[in-house]
Amino acid sequence: MTDLVLAVDFGGTKIAAALVGGAGDVVRSAQVATPQVDTWDAVADVVGRVLDGEQVAGAGIASAGPVDTAAGTVSPINVPSWREFPLRERVASLVPGVPVELAGDGVCMALGEQWRGAGQSSRFMVGLVVSTGVGGGLVLDGRPFGGRTGNAGHIGHVVVEPDGEPCTCGGRGCVETVAGGPRMVSWASARGWRGADAIALEASARAGDPVALAAFERAGHAVGLAIAATAAVCDLDLAVIGGGVAQAGELLFDPVRRALATHAGLSYLSTLDVRPAVLGGRAGLVGAAALVSGPRPA
Amino acid sequence: MTDLVLAVDFGGTKIAAALVGGAGDVVRSAQVATPQVDTWDAVADVVGRVLDGEQVAGAGIASAGPVDTAAGTVSPINVPSWREFPLRERVASLVPGVPVELAGDGVCMALGEQWRGAGQSSRFMVGLVVSTGVGGGLVLDGRPFGGRTGNAGHIGHVVVEPDGEPCTCGGRGCVETVAGGPRMVSWASARGWRGADAIALEASARAGDPVALAAFERAGHAVGLAIAATAAVCDLDLAVIGGGVAQAGELLFDPVRRALATHAGLSYLSTLDVRPAVLGGRAGLVGAAALVSGPRPA
Repeated sequence: MTDLVLAVDFGGTKIAAALVGGAGDVVRSAQVATPQVDTWDAVADVVGRVLDGEQVAGAGIASAGPVDTAAGTVSPINVPSWREFPLRERVASLVPGVPVELAGDGVCMALGEQWRGAGQSSRFMVGLVVSTGVGGGLVLDGRPFGGRTGNAGHIGHVVVEPDGEPCTCGGRGCVETVAGGPRMVSWASARGWRGADAIALEASARAGDPVALAAFERAGHAVGLAIAATAAVCDLDLAVIGGGVAQAGELLFDPVRRALATHAGLSYLSTLDVRPAVLGGRAGLVGAAALVSGPRPA
Repeated sequence: MTDLVLAVDFGGTKIAAALVGGAGDVVRSAQVATPQVDTWDAVADVVGRVLDGEQVAGAGIASAGPVDTAAGTVSPINVPSWREFPLRERVASLVPGVPVELAGDGVCMALGEQWRGAGQSSRFMVGLVVSTGVGGGLVLDGRPFGGRTGNAGHIGHVVVEPDGEPCTCGGRGCVETVAGGPRMVSWASARGWRGADAIALEASARAGDPVALAAFERAGHAVGLAIAATAAVCDLDLAVIGGGVAQAGELLFDPVRRALATHAGLSYLSTLDVRPAVLGGRAGLVGAAALVSGPRPA
């Protein structure tokens, strides 16, 4: 019996698929930009390329949300043509007779890092992706935690500035309005910084530009507040942070840690740690595979 | 075989015990003020009075935290003589041969309301006690969720004012610094209100005093922000609020609901509801009993 699992990571920007071994090793993978039309055909095509006739023991799917894990459907915000799209059933049709699991991409990122990445020491952790938006997922007691509908872990929508900017979620002052890359760029631009994107903003911060430094300080503080809230409520001992903005390293992590030093005061949070993600773009695929073949909790 | 369970609710102010039937009915109960010396003797005495020779099927304990549910020990902040006190083992010695379960009092309040109170419609909910402090607990997938150490659900320490007042937890700007009864009184007193306590503050608010009204508005807003964060991260559909400050009814609940209308924008939170707790001081006892005899999740 093979231990290979098909992993699919469906996002608004790209669709990735991989064959993943029982140890979390990516045997082969492929990806394609997400088209707005014939979207399912693109998934089937990339899956067909990585399967290439190989038998698999199951399939795991990470999808941009919202998802409905009970129904097996997905309604990704950035793919308007998919609303309650039956992604689990469709993928199952490509691998008949084996179990197929679906979870949100944030949950899969956290699970991937917990299984094979920076979170291997923890059974209660949150994974964050700080990028264009701020996403995340929870691993509780060693298991992926999707919550009532599969959408738990949306740490990017913890409110950190009650009177802050409107957010795409319909709320205001969410972490994402402060720490999402484009929002950091907007904030800095409104204060006289000149540059194109978050990568340029990072370069300016490294060069000592005070506005760029303040943008990272502010973003890290917001991320730290959201981690403190999540760790207090869910009793966690680890946050793993990945995504493009987190590539800025200590520019982001230093203010995150300062915020935690100030705001994570409860005794059971004394061991709370924050680490950079290590799996990069593969975390979603590895976590999707872990839905099927990852270790069961003790 | 009896379905009676011994329930113990150990708090910094009072110790309560009860015999609880299989339907969550409190058959008889007793309570005593928590003494700072010979504290265990007081527990044993009140337990002996409610047991009165009766056989029980098990015992459930709700305790003020922090708790360590793996070790079965408790270290209640307001009882300095108990540090890592082996409460589970001690209670077990009073009811030999039956299972004994321990959880934090916030978890038990939530579980009690979910089993027999205002939360019966929900399998993913948070219970809050807004009183001197702001405590809470989570029921996830129909089960009590204690997290890594048993202390999950500390919603009172979600930060709602990043530059706010110092909190007893060591952080600052936590919900508790805004919505805890004595903190509301301090805030109003500093703005010219004259009165003794949160009950007087409620009366003033009902009489239209603008400072008292603002204190409740501010407290409800803070509680609403913390519920929004918790519901987004844990994917909940219900918050049940009890405790002395919540007795003020719509004075607190209206601003809670306004905060949620502004800040709980994610699509999967569209059905999020907030309700007053109905079990009052019995919630901890009923929830403690539910640790042993409550319904198992579907």
